[in-house]
Formats: sequence, structure tokens, C-alpha cells
Amino acid sequence: MFSANTYSERRQKLIQSMDSGLLLLLGNNDSPMNYTDNIYPYRQDSNFLYFAGIDIPQFALIIDIEAGTSTLYGNDVSVEMVVWTGPQASVRDLADKAGIENTAPLAQLAGDLAKAKSGSRNIHFLPPYRFENKIRLSHMLGMDLSSINDQASLSFIKAVINLRGKKSEEEIVELDRACSITADMHVAAMKVCRPGIKESEVVAAVRYEALKHGGDVSYPVIGTIHGETLHNHHYHHTLEEGQLFLLDAGAETDTRYAGDMTRTFPVSKSFTTQQKEIYEIVLAAENRSIEMLRPGITYKEVHLEAARTITNGMQALGLMKGDVESSIAAGAHALFFPHGLGHMMGLDVHDMEDLGEDHVGYTDQLKRSTQFGLKSLRLGRELEEGFVLTVEPGIYFIPLLIDTWKKEGTCAEYLNFDKLDAYRSLGGIRIEEDYLITSNGSRLLGKALAKSIADVEAIRNS
Amino acid sequence: MFSANTYSERRQKLIQSMDSGLLLLLGNNDSPMNYTDNIYPYRQDSNFLYFAGIDIPQFALIIDIEAGTSTLYGNDVSVEMVVWTGPQASVRDLADKAGIENTAPLAQLAGDLAKAKSGSRNIHFLPPYRFENKIRLSHMLGMDLSSINDQASLSFIKAVINLRGKKSEEEIVELDRACSITADMHVAAMKVCRPGIKESEVVAAVRYEALKHGGDVSYPVIGTIHGETLHNHHYHHTLEEGQLFLLDAGAETDTRYAGDMTRTFPVSKSFTTQQKEIYEIVLAAENRSIEMLRPGITYKEVHLEAARTITNGMQALGLMKGDVESSIAAGAHALFFPHGLGHMMGLDVHDMEDLGEDHVGYTDQLKRSTQFGLKSLRLGRELEEGFVLTVEPGIYFIPLLIDTWKKEGTCAEYLNFDKLDAYRSLGGIRIEEDYLITSNGSRLLGKALAKSIADVEAIRNS
Repeated sequence: MFSANTYSERRQKLIQSMDSGLLLLLGNNDSPMNYTDNIYPYRQDSNFLYFAGIDIPQFALIIDIEAGTSTLYGNDVSVEMVVWTGPQASVRDLADKAGIENTAPLAQLAGDLAKAKSGSRNIHFLPPYRFENKIRLSHMLGMDLSSINDQASLSFIKAVINLRGKKSEEEIVELDRACSITADMHVAAMKVCRPGIKESEVVAAVRYEALKHGGDVSYPVIGTIHGETLHNHHYHHTLEEGQLFLLDAGAETDTRYAGDMTRTFPVSKSFTTQQKEIYEIVLAAENRSIEMLRPGITYKEVHLEAARTITNGMQALGLMKGDVESSIAAGAHALFFPHGLGHMMGLDVHDMEDLGEDHVGYTDQLKRSTQFGLKSLRLGRELEEGFVLTVEPGIYFIPLLIDTWKKEGTCAEYLNFDKLDAYRSLGGIRIEEDYLITSNGSRLLGKALAKSIADVEAIRNS
Repeated sequence: MFSANTYSERRQKLIQSMDSGLLLLLGNNDSPMNYTDNIYPYRQDSNFLYFAGIDIPQFALIIDIEAGTSTLYGNDVSVEMVVWTGPQASVRDLADKAGIENTAPLAQLAGDLAKAKSGSRNIHFLPPYRFENKIRLSHMLGMDLSSINDQASLSFIKAVINLRGKKSEEEIVELDRACSITADMHVAAMKVCRPGIKESEVVAAVRYEALKHGGDVSYPVIGTIHGETLHNHHYHHTLEEGQLFLLDAGAETDTRYAGDMTRTFPVSKSFTTQQKEIYEIVLAAENRSIEMLRPGITYKEVHLEAARTITNGMQALGLMKGDVESSIAAGAHALFFPHGLGHMMGLDVHDMEDLGEDHVGYTDQLKRSTQFGLKSLRLGRELEEGFVLTVEPGIYFIPLLIDTWKKEGTCAEYLNFDKLDAYRSLGGIRIEEDYLITSNGSRLLGKALAKSIADVEAIRNS
């Protein structure tokens, strides 16, 4: 938690950027796993955390724009509850730590909202993503549950994105820490990986590093010999000589800031020649992307340059062909690189995704593409100083996708389908790092982590 | 997953125990963490898993009692989705693996339910605990969201409890495996525990063992130097010489069966004299409870005998006084032992708790007590062969509770408050194991794990 002043200033900036009404922020409650009381690890809502700093369930915040003050809604804990939870700070103490002026019992929230509504005050809220909060909002505001997300306040959404998008110095300290722990997680995986063990054993070593520091992972770990499956959360395969292991894993600090990195390394001590060919293309695309990072460039340009580097590389291997610019315009590279180059990162690993990917990553002028591949680019807009983002190109050989494109003749003039057979079981390679946009370029977040073939093989042989 | 036959037989038994209508089982979907697509580890609903065997989101099952057949509702995966999820079994293949006769697209579920309703067929469902499933049920069945749980089918609940309560041989194999992994988790903690590290480092080592085997933990780990807080899920304290570390942690296998054990061990290499005094009382209560386990005894009797052992022990130390039976009747021991002796265990760590603790642990004849302490006993009823349960007495020194009872004079004739001061900072001690009720007694589940002072200290010194 930062100082009370930090949270007060954030709320003041928010108030200044809004016209009138109440800003309602519902904190997250515990989330049931297989029955009500067996809960998932608690995760506070990131917007609530950003403006109220309180990382405990059963709270809500109202910011009154005209009054310029805020009220924290929550309940003090009874003696009988202390038996189960231990001593807890009072609502008043928690409010003081975040510079919040007023407190009230949680049961008063619905009444206060009803009163504001009957006084014709505008009640702004952000789009709920947890079903419990959808229900709570629907009940308290008397709105239809099925359309509750459509009633969220666009001006509130945009004001929050403007604030959270640019990271402060104290946030960057936390993001650096998250990324350094993330680097440790990847080194642990590279050290433990060996033929004969299961993916789950590598993932366990990765999770150990994240947990040891008092946080956890910032998203479900992808740790697999099937890197061609982009969101693979199963860990039951046994590792074999000659395979590639793709690890996409990031730490979440105890302050809830995220890291997000990917490395791909051989299960054997070294890469095969074929693996090296593809790896070098991905690495070139990543390095070229990083060179381009600066305020003023659109991330869509950077994404397309990564696509260009991949297309050039695949043409050199004889896997693609034809005019490069036409090939990129047609989206032929998306057979191998079907996702976006990256996304914003902060308190959320896809930062502020709950507020709407297009609001975060696009503008009224720059709309998201509908083309396969490019449509998965979460961040397209102009970069600004203080943005934090991931750079994560990849090349994948997805048998079903290759077969489908071949059968349907998709982008056939740019693809040498016959030559692809030799690469069919290679899997997938992705390299991902996290960068801060500075005044004139960018800076890597967290400590350096091996990414060249030589450096990765050095760890595998250490 | 067990054989198709296992699931078919379970459904047939269920059909035979119900009168008429449709039995609706909604599977769990992914649960959002900090935005819709950043999800918690997937956990299927245990009832769905028990009757359909499918451990994947986005499925539902209808069992038609009159027809004697079942329909699995789910969607096959598109090519574009395979890019993200990898190749998936078809709905028909999944149905075959569980011996399910019919399949249908998920979108057909609401219509089929509406048709059944208009045909005046009874639609039985179990109480939903996930907010998404509450909403789905409310929409599909046209019932008010706020009272949806009251509309759950009592006959369905009781039929499921009758089946799931008695574990089959193949389930016991899985429970033994869960408990053996759980024992490994505790040994790992005893080995890594030392002054100067944080609780989170011990918890990370515990989680590593659970994850390595392809499962995870069956409930949030309690790993703390503040064992007097019963549900402590914070791990930020630094361990110091002379403290006790309480670890309450269990594995969930990749087949979703739970283990649940507790050990309390010294951060130093050995227990202090005072810690030994209390530990021996808890151990005596646990051993005495285990001796009593057999079909026909009520678990409430066993709980009260544990309370008796604790009361005798605390009287011998001069911390309690007065007539033992009156003291137990007054609940004086609950100052130190404020929770129940144990609960059922199976696919859920508190097995079937979603169906209602009182339906699982009590009967129409035996009602739950309202007395502090005894009211937290989840299982009171007569034990039967095939039940699996935990035995987990404990003694805790909870400063706020002691001060409150002292101030209010609660059970003052049975408590020597003045002598308690010397134990005030001892924390809490709990010992917990998992047992199967056999035809004439009980059997420990999983491999043996140190629990005597000598055996625990031997690991701490190894």
C-alpha cells in the first residue's frame, strides 16, 4: 500500500476529470471454488485498489464529485469473527490509511445510492466482471441484470484509463520488482526442466518462486511442450528429449503488480538446428520491436513491423513467399503469429481489460482490425511516456490451423504449405519481455533474463 | 476419470432413489479473477464431476428419471478456438467416456427446460453456490434470483448425499493418494521451516509438493505462526526462535479428491516445555477420538470425548477447574477448542458442503447445537462404513476471546483466567488426520506422517 497522499491525489485527479455525480467502486468479495466457504485466493478489484488501497473483501467506495470527498463502506469485525480471521484494522483505520474522509457500514450503501438516485444524481460505475458484483449493482441501482454492463459510465471508464495508463514512479518500483521475481521464475524453470519429468513439476518450481515472495502468479501459468496451443493450462505431459518447453508466466507482487514474460527453451541441453532457425526469427522480431518503442509511435506499427520481420524470416527459410507488403496486408503471417504483439500491464496483467480492451488499446480514430491475427492485438494506439507494455512475438505450428488454411487455400500465394510439413511438430516459440515507455524510448522492466540462444543454453547447461 | 460404467451406475442409483422429473446438474464455468479472461484455476462442481466425470467448463447434464437416460449439453470447439485451447475431445466422445446416452448443444438447454416446465415436469436442481450459476438457473427456470437457493430440491440433495457419503473402493484409492501427497507437503514444510524466513516461503514449499503431482491444494493453505487464528490466509510474518508453526494444508489430486491434515511444529529444533504440555493434550484428544471411530457411534459423542480429554488435560495444568461434565455441558472448553472435531471429506474437503452442512452432518433426529464451539461441529451424526472424515482437535490461546470471556465472566467457574496469562502468546496447536470408517473401526488414509513430539522433532533435526 502506498501513502494516504497517493490515494487522495488519485481521487482528486479523478474528481477533476469528471463533471458531476457519484463514482461508485465496488470492491471484490471472496470467490467460491467448490462451495461458498472454500474460496479462491482473494483478489481485490484493481480499480478499487488503485483508488482506495484496501486489499480486503467486503468494501465499497463512493466518491462524491461535487462534495469532493469520499466514503468508505465496510463493517468492523466482531469478537466471534476474530476467532477465525485474527485481529483486523477498523474501517476508520483503513480509511485513514487511504486518506478517505468518511466511513459508513456496508448495509448503508444501498440506501445512500437510492437516496442519490431519488435526488436525480448521476451514479457512475465501471463494468462489473464478477457475477456477484453484477447482481449487487443490478439490485442496488434497480437496473436489469442482463444489460448492467451497458449501463457502465463511459466518462468514468475513460477517466480511469487516463490515470491508470501512465504509471507513477512508485508504481514503476513495484513493476520492476514484479518483473525481477518473474525473471527468477523463468530461471527456476530452465534449471529444473529435463527429460522424464512432467510439465507440472516445472510449473511447481515456477509457482514456488512466485509464492515465496508473498505474492503469487499474475495469470494462469502456461508451461508446456505444446507451445503451439496459446492458452494451454494443462501440465500432464512428460517432457522428452528434442522437445521445446514454452513458459509464459508472471509474478504478482504482494502489492498486486504484475509481471508477464515468456521464454522458450529446449528440454534437451541445446536447441536443434530447426528450432534455432525459428527461434532466431522470433528473437529478431522481438529485438526490432523493442528498438521502435518510443512515445508517439502507434503499437500497431510496431506489431506490423514484427509481422514483417517474421515474414522475411519465414521467406528466407522457404516457408513463405510473394510480395512481403501484400503478404502482411493479407495477414498470411497470422498462420504462424495469430496473436497480438502485446498489451498494457500494471495492476492487471492485461491492464484495465475489465474497462474494455478497445477503450484501453484503441481510440476514436484508430479502430481495431477484424482480420484474423490483427484482431487479437489488444494495444494499437499511440504510445505515451509512462505506459508499461509487453513485447511478445511468436511463431507457432498449429497442425489443425495449417490443415484448415491449406484445404481452404487461405493466403495460398504467400505460403509454401508443402515445406511446412517438416516443421509440423516443432510446437511454438514465443519470447516476451516487459517495457516502460520513457521520454525518448523505452526501458526493460526487471532484471535481465537470458534470451539469446547462447544465454539460454548456458543456463540449461549450468 | 473412472470408467464409463462407474458414472452410469451412479446415475442409475440416483434415478432409483428419486420419484419423477428431471435432475439438472450445471457444471462450473471459469471464474473471473480481476477481469473476465484472467481466470482462477478451473474447478468443476463436485456433483457434476461425480455423475458426469467431465472436468471442463461449459457443460450441463440432465438426467431424466422416467426415461432413465441422460443428456450432456455442451459445444464442440471451433478451429479458431483450437488455436487457443488446443485440440479438444468432442461432446460425443466426452459423453461416451461417462456412459451418457444423449448429447445436445448448450444453447438447447434453456429450451429443453422450458419445454419440460410447460409439460409440468418437476425440475430438480441442487443449491447453486457460484453467482453465475445462480443467474443461469434463475433465467432458465424463471425463478427469482434472491430465492433461488430455497427452490433447490431436498429429495435430490438427500439422494446425492446418500450416494456420495459412502466412498467406493476406487474413490478410496484416490483419497489415499491425496492423503499421501498431503503427508509429503507437511514433511516439506517441517524440513524448510527455520527462523528468519517468512511464512510465505514455507507455504511455497507446501504448494510445490501439491502442484508437482499435477493437482493443487484442496483449500487455501493455513501456514502461520499465529495458529490461534483459525482461518489465517496471510503469510507475511517472519519466523522466530521459540514460536510454533501451524500448517493446515491438503492436496487435491488431478482427479479432484481432497486431503486435509494439520501439524504444529516448532520453528526452533524442539518444542519448549510449555508447548509440549499443550501438544500432549491435543495429541491425547486426537488419539482418543481415533480409538472411538466405528460405524454406529455419533461423531458428536466423539467430539464431546475430545472436549473431555482437553478439559481433563487443562485441569491438570491448572488452567481449568470444576466438575468436568458440567464444564463440558457449559462449553467452557470452547474457549480453547472453539471449532468442531471434524467433517466429511471426499471430492470436497468439507464434503458436499454446497448441499448444506446440516443435511450432510445431521439428521431429522439429531439437530445441530447453537452453543459456541459445538455449533461449529460440521459432522454430528452416526458414522457409517465408507464415510471418510477428518479428526482435528486443537487448543488455541486467542487473546481477544480470553479477554472477552474474562471481562464478561463467561464460564468463570470452570476457567482459571489468571493462570492463562503465562500461555497467552503460545498461539495454537492442532493435529489433524483423515480416516476411513471400516466395517468394525477405522483406517488412516495416506501414508503415516510424524505426529508424536519425538517424531516431529526428529524431522526438524534431520
